[in-house]
Amino acid sequence: MAASSTVFSDSYSATSRLLLPFRIRGFHLRRTLFLSPKSNKRSFVSSSAFASVAMTTETSSKLLDGKLIAKKIRDEIAGEIDGIKESTGIVPGLAVILVGSRKDSQTYVRNKKKACEDVGIASYEANLPEDCSEEEVIKHISKFNSNPLVHGILVQLPLPRHMNEEKILNAVSIEKDVDGFHPLNIGRLAMQGREPLFVPCTPKGCMELLHRYEIEIKGKRAVVIGRSNIVGMPAALLLQRANATVTIVHSYTKNPEEITKQADIVISAAGVANLVRGSWLKPGAVVVDVGINPVDDTGSARGYRLVGDVCFEEACKVASAITPVPGGVGPMTIAMLLSNTLSSAKRLHELK
Amino acid sequence: MAASSTVFSDSYSATSRLLLPFRIRGFHLRRTLFLSPKSNKRSFVSSSAFASVAMTTETSSKLLDGKLIAKKIRDEIAGEIDGIKESTGIVPGLAVILVGSRKDSQTYVRNKKKACEDVGIASYEANLPEDCSEEEVIKHISKFNSNPLVHGILVQLPLPRHMNEEKILNAVSIEKDVDGFHPLNIGRLAMQGREPLFVPCTPKGCMELLHRYEIEIKGKRAVVIGRSNIVGMPAALLLQRANATVTIVHSYTKNPEEITKQADIVISAAGVANLVRGSWLKPGAVVVDVGINPVDDTGSARGYRLVGDVCFEEACKVASAITPVPGGVGPMTIAMLLSNTLSSAKRLHELK
Repeated sequence: MAASSTVFSDSYSATSRLLLPFRIRGFHLRRTLFLSPKSNKRSFVSSSAFASVAMTTETSSKLLDGKLIAKKIRDEIAGEIDGIKESTGIVPGLAVILVGSRKDSQTYVRNKKKACEDVGIASYEANLPEDCSEEEVIKHISKFNSNPLVHGILVQLPLPRHMNEEKILNAVSIEKDVDGFHPLNIGRLAMQGREPLFVPCTPKGCMELLHRYEIEIKGKRAVVIGRSNIVGMPAALLLQRANATVTIVHSYTKNPEEITKQADIVISAAGVANLVRGSWLKPGAVVVDVGINPVDDTGSARGYRLVGDVCFEEACKVASAITPVPGGVGPMTIAMLLSNTLSSAKRLHELK
Repeated sequence: MAASSTVFSDSYSATSRLLLPFRIRGFHLRRTLFLSPKSNKRSFVSSSAFASVAMTTETSSKLLDGKLIAKKIRDEIAGEIDGIKESTGIVPGLAVILVGSRKDSQTYVRNKKKACEDVGIASYEANLPEDCSEEEVIKHISKFNSNPLVHGILVQLPLPRHMNEEKILNAVSIEKDVDGFHPLNIGRLAMQGREPLFVPCTPKGCMELLHRYEIEIKGKRAVVIGRSNIVGMPAALLLQRANATVTIVHSYTKNPEEITKQADIVISAAGVANLVRGSWLKPGAVVVDVGINPVDDTGSARGYRLVGDVCFEEACKVASAITPVPGGVGPMTIAMLLSNTLSSAKRLHELK
């Protein structure tokens, strides 16, 4: 155990290392056991969206269908924005600042813009060259800070190496920090009796998924794997706020398997493919897999495919419920960004 | 277990309920086994300071002597302040704001002033009547904020009920928040790669005690009992920063005994007399007891005496090291307040 515990990194970043002890292949589209959100009825539905992670009915795990829930949330948001536009003329606006020309960042920004459009949020964008100065980035942030049409500001990470991320993120007005990364927000999240203006999107998405499936958190043992500023740590704070008893497992933890096995709820955000094996889980545990890790796959046209932190094939035989990768936490993150932007617009305009 | 788990409160406050299942009495001054700080040698010293908690040598526990360490730290601080005064003429200053006339608060404020005097910190004080307005308190805070002779500002809690504590504490300049309760400080404490300007005094005192006794934290299992904003939660964040694997046990935790028994390090800040029994501890655990709870004692002139959260008589037979109450964390808290005030003066005057 000591060996594997030093393998995973604390920061939530995709790794390209192939850590798969075996390949999860040969999954075919089958009839899949889903748990209907907000109901305890199990229903058989067929879905092509989960072809790659479809479970056979021989397992007892239910899929926590992030794609489905995120769609529902986006529809709710779109409806609310329609209403606001009609009654007040206000259009929520999200500004995205992209520095440099990383292909992956460009894709993320494009996806966010598309998601905004779909629900009626106006997008604003600043594309700055790789070699621009910190001051220039901060100048654009300041402009968005004072622009009343902009209710949320997002700086796409990672920034070029020569920039001080802390300094730049701190320039975003706390009132428009829809990513929720400002230390003032994190402090309020940690404190009893205080309310953060925004909750970071990925951990908020994990919690929303648990809530929509009516999974009880109060009094449960929870383990969060990974303690990054953007996922692990705030996820632990959120679980704690919901009155779970929380343990964070990280790279210095000596017996991660033993500790994780005590948990009723596991949120894994380690960024290591297939770190969490079936043997790590307590029978009946609920598993939320935040990892999106590329692993080599010569059978794929791209040469790789994406897997979570959790060895799905093993975990789905032990867990009572589990998120797929992809189609689990990923879609929830973008839905929460839209939700934070809408909340911000409502707060800034003092709408209910 | 479920019964006792709902008994203790989350907030760190002394309770007057008598929860003692038996009386810890009949302790006499005996020769006590101390662990010398910053050395692994055990030495026999006799001390009248710990008469009430003296351990017999039949136990294996060492006392973590907060009174001794705090004295050492205060001497170090006094020496440093002397040097600063001589070379720069600067005198560190601490302002205390006391609202109302609670006897206990008056005693605390008097003790803090005395401790300041002893190390050469100038004290400033604002005593406001119980029925003054929030605005009046904030006006005094603002004056201290802009007074260059004041490097630390402390609002004595609790405030009268009609006041909004959050609003008042937020008025203290983040640069003079020597209590470290500002959410921006807590946020930075929670985040990797960020540094708080100040760490709250009591949890900082717990950590300093562990460090001075060279107790290793990295990779250890730690349990914090209680999750108050001023002790439990920041203590957990500090242990996590020191790379322990941390679990917070609180009033919704179903099996506090079982969880606590896994810990190499226990910090208890529940505010419940004798909550933590010997059976809660892993043999060899290190125990830091933050509780200061009055329990009825007809044998005492005051009619009560102070005990910790930990049943000392049982725990000292199981733990490898333990703090006494009183004489453990208490003196460390005041020493850390002085330390924070000195750090603040050095930072504001850009001294090394």
